[in-house]
Amino acid sequence: MSDPVYKKIQVVGTSTNSFSEAAANAIARAAQTIRNLSWFEVVEQRGSISDGKIQQYQVTVNIGFRVE
Amino acid sequence: MSDPVYKKIQVVGTSTNSFSEAAANAIARAAQTIRNLSWFEVVEQRGSISDGKIQQYQVTVNIGFRVE
Amino acid sequence: MSDPVYKKIQVVGTSTNSFSEAAANAIARAAQTIRNLSWFEVVEQRGSISDGKIQQYQVTVNIGFRVE
Amino acid sequence: MSDPVYKKIQVVGTSTNSFSEAAANAIARAAQTIRNLSWFEVVEQRGSISDGKIQQYQVTVNIGFRVE
Amino acid sequence: MSDPVYKKIQVVGTSTNSFSEAAANAIARAAQTIRNLSWFEVVEQRGSISDGKIQQYQVTVNIGFRVE
Amino acid sequence: MSDPVYKKIQVVGTSTNSFSEAAANAIARAAQTIRNLSWFEVVEQRGSISDGKIQQYQVTVNIGFRVE
Amino acid sequence: MSDPVYKKIQVVGTSTNSFSEAAANAIARAAQTIRNLSWFEVVEQRGSISDGKIQQYQVTVNIGFRVE
Amino acid sequence: MSDPVYKKIQVVGTSTNSFSEAAANAIARAAQTIRNLSWFEVVEQRGSISDGKIQQYQVTVNIGFRVE
Amino acid sequence: MSDPVYKKIQVVGTSTNSFSEAAANAIARAAQTIRNLSWFEVVEQRGSISDGKIQQYQVTVNIGFRVE
Amino acid sequence: MSDPVYKKIQVVGTSTNSFSEAAANAIARAAQTIRNLSWFEVVEQRGSISDGKIQQYQVTVNIGFRVE
Amino acid sequence: MSDPVYKKIQVVGTSTNSFSEAAANAIARAAQTIRNLSWFEVVEQRGSISDGKIQQYQVTVNIGFRVE
Amino acid sequence: MSDPVYKKIQVVGTSTNSFSEAAANAIARAAQTIRNLSWFEVVEQRGSISDGKIQQYQVTVNIGFRVE
Repeated sequence: MSDPVYKKIQVVGTSTNSFSEAAANAIARAAQTIRNLSWFEVVEQRGSISDGKIQQYQVTVNIGFRVE
Repeated sequence: MSDPVYKKIQVVGTSTNSFSEAAANAIARAAQTIRNLSWFEVVEQRGSISDGKIQQYQVTVNIGFRVE
Repeated sequence: MSDPVYKKIQVVGTSTNSFSEAAANAIARAAQTIRNLSWFEVVEQRGSISDGKIQQYQVTVNIGFRVE
Repeated sequence: MSDPVYKKIQVVGTSTNSFSEAAANAIARAAQTIRNLSWFEVVEQRGSISDGKIQQYQVTVNIGFRVE
Repeated sequence: MSDPVYKKIQVVGTSTNSFSEAAANAIARAAQTIRNLSWFEVVEQRGSISDGKIQQYQVTVNIGFRVE
Repeated sequence: MSDPVYKKIQVVGTSTNSFSEAAANAIARAAQTIRNLSWFEVVEQRGSISDGKIQQYQVTVNIGFRVE
Repeated sequence: MSDPVYKKIQVVGTSTNSFSEAAANAIARAAQTIRNLSWFEVVEQRGSISDGKIQQYQVTVNIGFRVE
Repeated sequence: MSDPVYKKIQVVGTSTNSFSEAAANAIARAAQTIRNLSWFEVVEQRGSISDGKIQQYQVTVNIGFRVE
Repeated sequence: MSDPVYKKIQVVGTSTNSFSEAAANAIARAAQTIRNLSWFEVVEQRGSISDGKIQQYQVTVNIGFRVE
Repeated sequence: MSDPVYKKIQVVGTSTNSFSEAAANAIARAAQTIRNLSWFEVVEQRGSISDGKIQQYQVTVNIGFRVE
Repeated sequence: MSDPVYKKIQVVGTSTNSFSEAAANAIARAAQTIRNLSWFEVVEQRGSISDGKIQQYQVTVNIGFRVE
Repeated sequence: MSDPVYKKIQVVGTSTNSFSEAAANAIARAAQTIRNLSWFEVVEQRGSISDGKIQQYQVTVNIGFRVE
């Protein structure tokens, strides 16, 4: 059996600046412990508010990586 | 009964520049009349097009705030 | 029958920089061959990863335009 | 900040005659207290039955209006 | 145990005239064999086309009735 | 390979009178340029409001037709 | 053909006390007329309110049973 | 126009004890300022965890009430 | 009223070999007691695992049939 | 702008034998008129029944292809 | 990069008594091997039936925890 | 606490032959490192196309296993 198999994990990245940075942070953190990260899917975008302003952007992503 | 209770309202922010600014505008406007805004959830992202370019970014967000 | 009728097509824009640029690219490409583009709806946000970093942002949008 | 901001409320209109009239009733009632109603979205269609016939049509609509 | 219990069945009504009549037909047919029909929920609206015109309206409804 | 194949397109019909007419308009317009229209599925029902009344009914339908 | 086949029915249980009891009531009622009930899935949780308090808990469950 | 019209608001109740109490709290709080509460629908169930135990149950409910 | 009316039931077919056979089993079983089976819709695909291999394929289908 | 852009179309393939063949037929037909087909997504699986047996497998797929 | 990152895992808790206990069991078990559990989201509620009574409550929860 | 607890992981199996084989490959791979695999749920079916033919079948499955 040589057909590739992938695993998806769900990670929530956060950022005080933007949803883009939050997604990048999620992926950067996953890359610290997992090799072969291949793709991601945005599942949810939300955030916290403080003093009437967005305080933290939160992006939930599914991250797919090849299982070796 | 001292358990906190929250209310969610649905607001559509717009911007000529980006989805991020549209979301920020929605929250800034809600903050003008409501205190204790606590979190938001992105519900929908869409926009209008003019002359083949994005004219307006529109983001629908649920905004949660504590009911005093 | 003079009530306007619209058609929606589904396009996937990509960008190496951001989801915003990916959406803009989808719309710019559609505008090359279709007139009267009127609105868009974000359907899906995903992307590819390379070397632990986001390599390509991919945004699927429904694009609505008036049928003449 | 001059980008328009909208609020969506959820209203259930009813009618003994049709879903169309139920939706119209929801919007007419909202228009009594809110200015600038701009668009609506049908969220749910249901109704009650009595003596084997539709007794009441019920339509849940999201109604969007510009916040001044 | 005297709390009421209901059953939901799924019925597809059709009509050559309108979705409203299709829904009414679904309920009328169910009423021929089931007593105590109480409410309905529209689940799906579709139809067939012939010669470029709507030939048949099809409405799928969940119908709830009290189990005696 | 003689098994029939169908294509679905997404069309938004509008009407100042009713959702039914909006759906009929979508299908009538599609029939002007496409043969063999076979079925439709209602995907979304919304509309615009003016002066507190429904101004335009908008129905998004998927229309299926046989590819010859 | 000896592979087991199951049927799912949809039942709404109610209770003046809790969602748990409402679900239990739905299943108890189904068990009066159907043998081999095997599993259930919660589909919807709602209820009625009277005098500002929950009056009735309503749980819609899919109930699966083996067809003999 | 005498057909009843209802409004739905979205409220998040919390409790340190159970989801049931969280829902009851949401409704009790809404009843302090709104008359004619009629029904509720559970939209989301979540909660916070502290020291490996559920610290707070959070239930988002849509609450419907008749507009007078 | 001569417009056809259909009923949909939900059946779970199983097979030790494939999803296709599981679906076929569901339909074959329904055909033993119901006439005029007309169409089916796949609702869910799942299965059990034993010793690291698929032991049973389970397909939930909605089956539509004309009510005479 | 050299970022690739893709278009998705929705096609329904059919087969008297299996869902797999139905999907393959949808893609084979699309390939007759469109170049650069790149990926597909299964959207819906259904079929027709005749004499208590599956007569036709129907698979709706979204097919993505690069716009040159 | 000091923005917190979270991981979500999906756990199914069971109980012979209630959905609440099933959720608590899922979280208690996760806490045995994972630190910093922060929140949970109810994804699915189902259960098994034996002798016409609920035998086992099953709750699927997403559990979020901070990645250190 | 002796109530069983399960964990669900999400795996994408691939195959050049069929969706069935892709699902089987996902489960076989998971079984190499995890004991007690108990059930699976199909979450997504998609694939890649090359030269107008299906090149790779991709099935995303949730796999449940008992946590010892």
